[in-house]
Amino acid sequence: MLSTTPRTTLGREKHRGSTDRNDLYEVLDSGLICHLGVVVDGHPMVVPTGYGRIGDTLYLHGSTGARSLRAGQGQQVCVTVTHLDGIVLARSVFNHSVNYRSAVVYGEARLVTDEQERMDGLRALTEQLAPGQWDYARRPTRKELAATAVLALSLEEASVKVRSGAPEDEEEDYALPVWAGVLPVVSSWGAPVPDPVLAGDTATPAHIRDR
Amino acid sequence: MLSTTPRTTLGREKHRGSTDRNDLYEVLDSGLICHLGVVVDGHPMVVPTGYGRIGDTLYLHGSTGARSLRAGQGQQVCVTVTHLDGIVLARSVFNHSVNYRSAVVYGEARLVTDEQERMDGLRALTEQLAPGQWDYARRPTRKELAATAVLALSLEEASVKVRSGAPEDEEEDYALPVWAGVLPVVSSWGAPVPDPVLAGDTATPAHIRDR
Repeated sequence: MLSTTPRTTLGREKHRGSTDRNDLYEVLDSGLICHLGVVVDGHPMVVPTGYGRIGDTLYLHGSTGARSLRAGQGQQVCVTVTHLDGIVLARSVFNHSVNYRSAVVYGEARLVTDEQERMDGLRALTEQLAPGQWDYARRPTRKELAATAVLALSLEEASVKVRSGAPEDEEEDYALPVWAGVLPVVSSWGAPVPDPVLAGDTATPAHIRDR
Repeated sequence: MLSTTPRTTLGREKHRGSTDRNDLYEVLDSGLICHLGVVVDGHPMVVPTGYGRIGDTLYLHGSTGARSLRAGQGQQVCVTVTHLDGIVLARSVFNHSVNYRSAVVYGEARLVTDEQERMDGLRALTEQLAPGQWDYARRPTRKELAATAVLALSLEEASVKVRSGAPEDEEEDYALPVWAGVLPVVSSWGAPVPDPVLAGDTATPAHIRDR
């Protein structure tokens, strides 16, 4: 079950909400980037960034010098992951919408200091964006690790919203001679583009080629 | 030229920043949704939502009852639009990255009360998500308009960041027998899915079919 704190209880469109923790995992696990919200000098700041999940903990990382990461340490943050699945074209402008799956996580971001947890978090972050690369590419050096801040955010307080399917029009609008339906947004992988300076005999590994 | 206030001046990776206002327009105009950040009771809240642009003003809308919109009125907000273009697979885990284009806009959100500007804003919002639909679908009624809040945000204070191209590896890593390059993320339109209750003789209009 997901939390039912005031900020994770949907104020509107409650029927779009899910209280199933597995739905939260699914939205998070199928994403590539999140939008991290922090408060800086009293104003909101939203930055796109990578993330990874281990159990009920979300990991974020960045340069130790990044403003958003500094602002998040030990502070309340909000992490939102959104999948846009389609444009919902209704018979009225008012009922236009989008099909989507989104997860919103609230909590205090904890600066991870334990070396093993830092490595586990970085591995999860790498594998979220590029599965197979943690074992394939060169692992971080001590110096690289020192330049990287890892934050942990509990998934305790989170909400999930999903909209799918056809438009919901006003009763009287169904008689209008207006086309209505969904225009799907499809996200896919293009063919891998080798680094121009890559040695000619370096084959594309299967975990990249077949993703 | 874009602004150079402290919060729009990049602290890191300055070479990824653009100061060209046209780059801002391009990132915004090619997006479908933004992530709106507001401060609620001192904590950040980030929600995905639609937007539209007219000149140097961004328009947002929502139910008059939506928490995020209420929290944004007359308050500092942050609007971020992100395009994820590819996963950058480097020779080292540390240098993994993503290719992206992102715009971040800061400012005080103004509740739009002028009826003409409200209509213009709603038109821009509709056309951003579904070009051609403002003239095709049924326009908002007085009652629907009364249920809709429109917020305006000046584009005065904004920043743009872009990463493209190959990985940037450490000098000594180029000799490693590791494949490196970019895995493109491609976003495209699927075939329009008609509402199941659509009258059989309602043809898909060209502006939807040919998008």
